[in-house]
Amino acid sequence: MPGEFAFIDWLRARTSASARVLVGPGDDTAVIAPGSRSQLVTVDMLMDGTDFHLAEVGPRAAGRKAMAVNLSDIAAMAGIPTAAVASVALPSGHGRRLAEQLYLGLRDVADAFGVAIVGGDTNSWNHPLAISVTVLGEATERGPVLRRGAKPGDWLFVTGPLGGSIRGKHLTVTPRVHEALRLHEAAELHAMIDISDGLAADLAHILEESRCGAVLDAKAIPISADAAELSLTSGKTPLQHALGDGEDFELLFAVSSADGERVLRDQPVPGITLSKVGECIDFGLWLETDGVRTKLDPVGWVHPL
Amino acid sequence: MPGEFAFIDWLRARTSASARVLVGPGDDTAVIAPGSRSQLVTVDMLMDGTDFHLAEVGPRAAGRKAMAVNLSDIAAMAGIPTAAVASVALPSGHGRRLAEQLYLGLRDVADAFGVAIVGGDTNSWNHPLAISVTVLGEATERGPVLRRGAKPGDWLFVTGPLGGSIRGKHLTVTPRVHEALRLHEAAELHAMIDISDGLAADLAHILEESRCGAVLDAKAIPISADAAELSLTSGKTPLQHALGDGEDFELLFAVSSADGERVLRDQPVPGITLSKVGECIDFGLWLETDGVRTKLDPVGWVHPL
Repeated sequence: MPGEFAFIDWLRARTSASARVLVGPGDDTAVIAPGSRSQLVTVDMLMDGTDFHLAEVGPRAAGRKAMAVNLSDIAAMAGIPTAAVASVALPSGHGRRLAEQLYLGLRDVADAFGVAIVGGDTNSWNHPLAISVTVLGEATERGPVLRRGAKPGDWLFVTGPLGGSIRGKHLTVTPRVHEALRLHEAAELHAMIDISDGLAADLAHILEESRCGAVLDAKAIPISADAAELSLTSGKTPLQHALGDGEDFELLFAVSSADGERVLRDQPVPGITLSKVGECIDFGLWLETDGVRTKLDPVGWVHPL
Repeated sequence: MPGEFAFIDWLRARTSASARVLVGPGDDTAVIAPGSRSQLVTVDMLMDGTDFHLAEVGPRAAGRKAMAVNLSDIAAMAGIPTAAVASVALPSGHGRRLAEQLYLGLRDVADAFGVAIVGGDTNSWNHPLAISVTVLGEATERGPVLRRGAKPGDWLFVTGPLGGSIRGKHLTVTPRVHEALRLHEAAELHAMIDISDGLAADLAHILEESRCGAVLDAKAIPISADAAELSLTSGKTPLQHALGDGEDFELLFAVSSADGERVLRDQPVPGITLSKVGECIDFGLWLETDGVRTKLDPVGWVHPL
C-alpha cells in the first residue's frame, strides 16, 4: 500500500504504541503498559460469503479488510490505534497456508499503522471462515470525537468520493487514521463517523446521537468513478450509490461554519480533498437539489455481496 | 450463580471498572478512562459444535461460557477484569431470541464480576453460531502473573479437583478471578495459568516459558467426582482424566517452597482447597507414583465434544 502511508512518520512521532506492549502472544492474555489517555476499544467480525468471498479474494485480502474496518472505527474517533487481537474460525482442510496468509493480511495493515498484534485465538471447523478483530487505541489530548456533538449550523464534510465500493475498494480501503488525526489538529470536530453503512445511514447515526437534523447538497456530494460505473448496469443513479452504498470507509464529520470555511479553504489534509456535503439544521434529513428539498430515507445499507 | 461470588464486595472495593467506561455501545468504539496500571487484553472464540452443542445447552449457557473462559484468562494473570466486547455470527432463522439469550448469558457472568460490556458486533449467516469475546482488564499493584517465572524448587498448586469437565462443568464454570486476586495478596506467585488444555499440557506451557522442569505427585492430584464417574466407561483411569482433560478452568501456580508451606497450612482462599500437586525441578516433566518417576507426555487436550 505505497503512497497511502505518507503520514506514517508523522504518526509514529506521536505514539509509542509498540513500546507499551509488555507481553504479547505467548501468554493467554497480553499486557500493555498504562497510558495517560482514554482507551478506545472496537470489534468487528467478518464472515466468508458476507463480507468477502474467500475463494475469490483469498485469505490475505480478507485479513487486510478485517484489520482495516476496525482501524476505521478508531479513525472515526480521531484515535491512535495501538494494539489488536484476532480470533478466527478457519474452515478445516486448508492447512496452515490459509491461517498464515490471513495473518499476513492482518499484519500488512497493522504494521502500516504501527499497531501491535498482541494476541489471538485460532480454531478450525467444517464451516466458512469467520474472523473477529478487536482493536485498542487511545484518544489524543483533545479527547475522542463522538457521534454526538453536531449542532444546527454546523457544516458537514466527507474525506473522499463515495459509492460503488463493491467494485473493489471495500477490500483495499486504507482506514483514515492519519487523516482523522490531522483533521483533529486543524479543527474542532463536533462529531464524526466512518461511512460503513452508507452516507445517508451514517449521517442518520450522527443526527440521532446529536439530536439535530441535516440537509445534504445533492450537487456537492463527491461521487466515485466506481459509483458512476456501477450505475450503468445497476438501475440506480450515481448519486443513489453515493448516498446508499456502504463500506466506503471515508469519514463524515461536522464542524462549526467558521471552522468549515477554514477547512474548505485550507484543505489541511495532504493527499485528499475535503468536500462540504451539507449543513446541520434543527431536525429531519433532507436532500437539496436545485433549491428543492426532499425527505431523504436513511437507507439501510444493502450489503454489497 | 449464588454462593460462588462471595468475594464480589471485596472485589468491588478494589476496582472502579464501570465508572471508567465513558462511552459504551452506541458509538462504534467504546471509550474507557485511562488507568494507572498495566492493561490486560485477551480473546477467545467459541463455536457451536466445538465448544458447546447449541441445540442441547441453549444460547444462554453458550453466552455464559464465552464470557467465563475469557475471564479465566484474566484470572490466570491475577488481573482485574474491567470491560468486554463481543462479536457474533448468529445462525439465521432464530429471530431475536437467540441473540437476546446469548447476550443475557454474557451479562450473567460479566455482571457477577463487575465487567462492563462496552461494545459488540452482531451478524447473521446460514452457518452455526460463532461468538468471540474480548476482555480487557488491569493488573494489580503487584503486576501481572505470567507463565514464565517458575523456578526449580518451587511448589506447584491447583485450586480445585480436575477432570471430567465435559460432564457439565465446562459450561457452568466460575472463573477463578477472585481466588487469583486473593492468592496474589497471600503469596508471591512466580507463574500461573488456567487449566484449559489439561493439567499436563498447561503445566508444560509454564515449564516451556519458565525453562525448567517439574515432577507431579500422582497421589496428590485432586481428582473430581466427574473424572471418577467418566472413568467407569471411558477406558481411562480417573488420574488420566485429571491429567489430560481440558476446560477445568482451575488455576495452576508456582510459588517458593517457603510460600508453599504457608499456603498449604493457611489455605488463604475461602471456599476452596489449594492442593500441592508437585514441585519444579531442572528439566523434564515427570509423574511420581510410589517413589517411581515416569516420563509424562504433555498430552494435548482432546476437545471434550
